[in-house]
Formats: sequence, structure tokens, C-alpha cells
Amino acid sequence: TKRYSITLLPGDGIGPEVITVAKNVLKLVGSLEGIEFSFQEMPMGGAALDLTGVPLPEETLSAAQRADAVLLGAIGGYKWDKNEKHLKPETGLLQLREGLKVFANLRPATVLPQLVDSSTLKKDVAEGVDLIVVRELTGGIYFGKPRGFGTNEKGEDIGFNTEVYSTHEIARKRRGQLCSVDKANVLEASMLWRKRVTAIASEYPDVELSHMYVDNAAMQLVRYPKQFDTIVTNNIFGDILSDEASMITGSIGMLPSASLGESGPGLFEPIHGSAPDIAGQDKANPLATILSAAMLLKYGLGEANAANRIENAVLDTLNRGFRTGDIYSTGNKLVGCKEMGEEVLKSV
Amino acid sequence: TKRYSITLLPGDGIGPEVITVAKNVLKLVGSLEGIEFSFQEMPMGGAALDLTGVPLPEETLSAAQRADAVLLGAIGGYKWDKNEKHLKPETGLLQLREGLKVFANLRPATVLPQLVDSSTLKKDVAEGVDLIVVRELTGGIYFGKPRGFGTNEKGEDIGFNTEVYSTHEIARKRRGQLCSVDKANVLEASMLWRKRVTAIASEYPDVELSHMYVDNAAMQLVRYPKQFDTIVTNNIFGDILSDEASMITGSIGMLPSASLGESGPGLFEPIHGSAPDIAGQDKANPLATILSAAMLLKYGLGEANAANRIENAVLDTLNRGFRTGDIYSTGNKLVGCKEMGEEVLKSV
Ligand SMILES: CC(C)[C@H](C(=O)O)[C@@H](O)C(=O)O
Ligand SMILES: CC(C)[C@H](C(=O)O)[C@@H](O)C(=O)O
Repeated sequence: TKRYSITLLPGDGIGPEVITVAKNVLKLVGSLEGIEFSFQEMPMGGAALDLTGVPLPEETLSAAQRADAVLLGAIGGYKWDKNEKHLKPETGLLQLREGLKVFANLRPATVLPQLVDSSTLKKDVAEGVDLIVVRELTGGIYFGKPRGFGTNEKGEDIGFNTEVYSTHEIARKRRGQLCSVDKANVLEASMLWRKRVTAIASEYPDVELSHMYVDNAAMQLVRYPKQFDTIVTNNIFGDILSDEASMITGSIGMLPSASLGESGPGLFEPIHGSAPDIAGQDKANPLATILSAAMLLKYGLGEANAANRIENAVLDTLNRGFRTGDIYSTGNKLVGCKEMGEEVLKSV
Repeated sequence: TKRYSITLLPGDGIGPEVITVAKNVLKLVGSLEGIEFSFQEMPMGGAALDLTGVPLPEETLSAAQRADAVLLGAIGGYKWDKNEKHLKPETGLLQLREGLKVFANLRPATVLPQLVDSSTLKKDVAEGVDLIVVRELTGGIYFGKPRGFGTNEKGEDIGFNTEVYSTHEIARKRRGQLCSVDKANVLEASMLWRKRVTAIASEYPDVELSHMYVDNAAMQLVRYPKQFDTIVTNNIFGDILSDEASMITGSIGMLPSASLGESGPGLFEPIHGSAPDIAGQDKANPLATILSAAMLLKYGLGEANAANRIENAVLDTLNRGFRTGDIYSTGNKLVGCKEMGEEVLKSV
């Protein structure tokens, strides 16, 4: 039996509901694949603020650092919206990313044939979209210094090259097309970014590298999203474009994400927020968190078989017609968060 | 007879073609409205680089500053893409904006009933979209200083309050809804921004102010664009969101823009680029530039009647079925740039 320790950070709003469901899925899949998980639940975000006065208690960060992987629900809510910056739930998330040194954020946006009608885009534009945004996660204006991509306080390149390499690797394992998004016609940091992504491209002759300005990328995602395979971009552009891309799929309740560093535990979380308006009502879609658990298995632990099991179970559950409210369409079976989780367990 | 001097900056790519057409429309409308224009054509962008070695020659800037309004075609092209920053066509545009102190950039995105099918969004999502993005144009990371919105080097508020006021004025003249877009959960500059937009809101009780994070705004534009009336945001977010919004209309060849300061000439230009791939082929859609000339009349010169004449002529031309390639659909008449211009003249 293989053993892994997972730190669970349920967080706020619908976070606890979706984490409970994903945990059960991990347990069952583990038992079938000869994997034993030990779970440790720690407070984070608004929940941690209420409990301890800070959004990321030291105990939470050190538990996360010691774990094999970290699964996060969601953070934030109206209650803490007016807090000062260092007391915002979001600040805890930024501290967690920094503390885990997870500099590469992978955000797939895939239109499943079962859900193509959920997109606001015309069917022929939406169907077949299958892209991934790789977002630089621990640099840029998010961390106050208008410095180049991936350099640390001393101007060193820590993490940078690794990210560029891993970005090319990701594109290679997909359809071999890498689109680097920047604003190199205006920003110095983007000019540097472009230079470096280009430099390493020569080591990946099988990957086709292109460059696009961020404003154009925001347009092209609406105009013809199928042109994209792997998009790589900086922190703030990635924040905006990955959310835009996710909405193009029409089902953000379905989309997982992974944040990876050079070594150490990865951070896995659904891309949706804490949805305080439906919290505690058993209405949340747990599939994004379940699929984040699949990314955890694949990218965090190297357990590809277990990951595939989860992904197939999710597809099977959709094929059997189960839908939470956010992806419901007539003819299907409307279920809540818990019931969706139970159906996925049946499909595992 | 009223007299106005207009500086024309044809620029690069399709710029000269669309400027020629718009100039003819201005002339005709002027003659019907008792307005006489004196036009002065000056080099700018790549054209200026080739001619003088810099993207914004001093003569061009001072001519623009002395004019009553400035009409720009488009700038940029592959030829100058690898230039150093100070020798890029784009740098000339930034210098022009700074030199004219035009800090508020108005970018309407309207889905015309005649063109609703051009959008990649489903018809019920796209139809009726009528929003405007007001983008802060001379601050932010575009000008190298990670400073608050609208403060100058000395930390003073020059231009800031005027923009916030004019933003509320614009919303008031529209449907009274102002959505301020920021990233106040992460960026200090956004926190300041939010505070100020909110402070001045109390003087506009008839304008309903809301706030949205930029990543959410990028999603909401795809999900339900009709929720927006007036969006106000900073330079880089405005660059991205206004392009996204324009693509949602499906006809960026139709969209004008205006850049205004506290006093002095405004800068008017289509939002599309220089389209080097179709330059010189008489394929460009001149309507965005013609509609920019209408904004010039309305916002730059206070000649609302003349502006309406142009807007009506454009609608009439569309109703008569004339379409350039970018907005063509079967059943309509495909025309080139020049012929489209001639049809608009007939409709004036
Ligand atoms: C909550 C916020 C700090 C965060 C970010 O901007 O990174 C979120 O929008 C995300 O994309 O994960
Ligand atoms: C060409 C470029 C400098 C410019 C900008 O980023 O402002 C353009 O994208 C625009 O939106 O007008």
C-alpha cells in the first residue's frame, strides 16, 4: 500500500461542502488502487480569520508544506470583503502560494460534449474547445514588485527556467502548440518574458511557439477559442484570461486547477469561488473539486491510473444524466452537491 | 460658418485607406451643417519611423496639440515589431496620449440588430448589448510607475477627479449604471481606485455604482454582457476588457473610440488595428473610423447634429445591405473600403 498525506483546506462558503465530497471520492479510489490517504483538515481564509485572526495561520502553512499535496475548497465572502489587505482571505491564498512556492498554475478549460449547450457561445464555436492556461503564480504585480517574470528579490531566476521548461513540456504532451501571451509592445517585463520563452523554445523543436498580445488574446478567446492549445502568461493576465476561458466553456463548476512548484507539495483547487449566496444549501457543483483531486493524483502524486478513474467516473456520471443546478438542462436529473458526490462514487 | 482644424494621423497598414474615407464624410457633413474643416495630415507610427526615425515627430505632436481634434487611423506592423521600445510605433501612440493629456478613453461596444449574427455569442446573449468601457489612459503600469490611478509624479491628483466625475456623467447620460472594475482584493492601487470612485458617487445619487473584480468582469462579459451599461477601469484592465467587449459584438470593424482630457483636443480612432495583412487591398471596413469621426464631432467639437447625421448614414448604409468582408453575410452586398465610403456619402 502506498501512503500519502493530504492537507485539506475547506475554506469558506461552499468550500467545506465540495471538499467533503472530493475527500470521499479520493478515499474510494485509493482503496481500489492500493493507496492510503491520511487527511488533515486545517483552517484557511475567512474561516481562519474568524478562528485565529489571520487568513493563513502558521500551523496551516506548515501542515501544507509537510503534506504530499494540498486540496483547497474556496475562500472569501462578503463578511471579510472590507478587511484591510493583510486581513483578507485572499491574502491568505497569496501567502499559501508563496509559502508553497507553487509558481506554475495550470487551468484547463475544456468543453465536454455533454455540456456544450451550457456555453453562451454558438455551438460550432464552443464545441471541441480544449485548452489549458498556464499562469505564472508567484510574481508580477501580485507581489508588489514590478519585476521581471520569475526573478526573486535579488534578481535571480529561481523558478523561472523551470516554469518555462515545464510549460513547453505541457504543450508537448498536448497538441504541441504553445501560445505565449504578453504585452511586449508596451511593458518591459513582457519584453523580457518573450525573450526567455523564445530562448528555451529551441530545445523543443516539436513545440510550435507563437506570441500574442494580451488584448488580442482576450478577443481571440471569444472569436475562435479552438485555435488555442496551451497558453502561457503572467500572473495578472493569467487571472483574467483563465477566467474568461473558463466562462467560454459555460461550466465553471466543472473546472479544476493545479499549482505546482519545482518540488514540494502542489496546491489543487476548483477555479470557482466560495459562492456565499448558495453556501450551506447543498447546491454546489462538486465536480470541479473532484476533478481537482484527479489533478492532485496525476500531477501531485504521479498516480495517473487513480486520476483516470476519477475522470472517467465524472464523465460516466454526466452520461447518466446527473446535473447540479449550474449545468442543468431539461431532460437531465437535477441533484444537489451530496447526491452528485454519491453518483460519482457509484461510477468510480 | 464654423471653422475647425483637424489633425489627421493616417498611420500604418489600413490607416491611410480608412482615414481618406472618413475625411470625405467629414467634409460632406460639414458642408451640410455649415462647418468648414481644415485638415492637416501628419506622419505617425511606423510611417513616421520610416520618414523621420521616431514614431511621434515633434511636429506631429505640436500640430495635434494645436488642432481642435485629432483623428487617427491605426499604427503598427510586422516591419517594426522587433524595434526597441523607444522606436516602436506603439510608443508613439503612448507619447501622443500623454502629450495630449487624454486620460479618459471611451470605447462603446454595441451590437447593432443588423449585425447580431456576426457575434460568436448566441443570439439571445448578444442582441441588445450596448455598453461603454471608460478606460483610464495615461496612468498605471503603461507609464512605468506602479502608482495610484491618476496621480502624477508628485502624487497629485491631476486629472483623476475630472475623470471620475466625467465617468459618472457618462453613466448618467446612459442608463445610469456604473460598474467600476478593479482587483481590490489584491492590488493596493485598486483599493485606492475603489475608494475614490465611491467617494464621488455620493454626488450622483441617480447613478447606481457597483464594483467588480477584473477576473469576474472578464467572465461576466461572456456570460451575460447585457448586465453592463458603463464600465470604468484602469489602463491595462481597460485594454483587455474593451477588446474582449468589442469582440463580443462580433464587429470590431465597426467600433470607434474617443480619448479625452480636461481641455484641449481629443483623440479619436477606430479600435481595430492596422491590419497589415489586408493593407492596400481596399478591403478594410471604414465604418469604425467614420463613427470615430462622429465621436469627434460630438465629444470633441460639441457638434451633436453633425455627429447624428453620420451615425444615421452608417445605419442607413447597413440597412441598404452594404457590407465589407469582415461583416459580410449571405444576402448582402460585398463592397470594398472605398465603395463603402461612397455609399455612406450617399446616405448622409
Ligand atoms: C482570490 C484571488 C486572490 C485569486 C487570484 O487573483 O489569484 C483568484 O482570483 C484566482 O484566480 O485564484
Ligand atoms: C497599441 C497599444 C499600445 C494600444 C494600447 O495598449 O493601449 C492598443 O492596444 C489600444 O488598446 O489602443
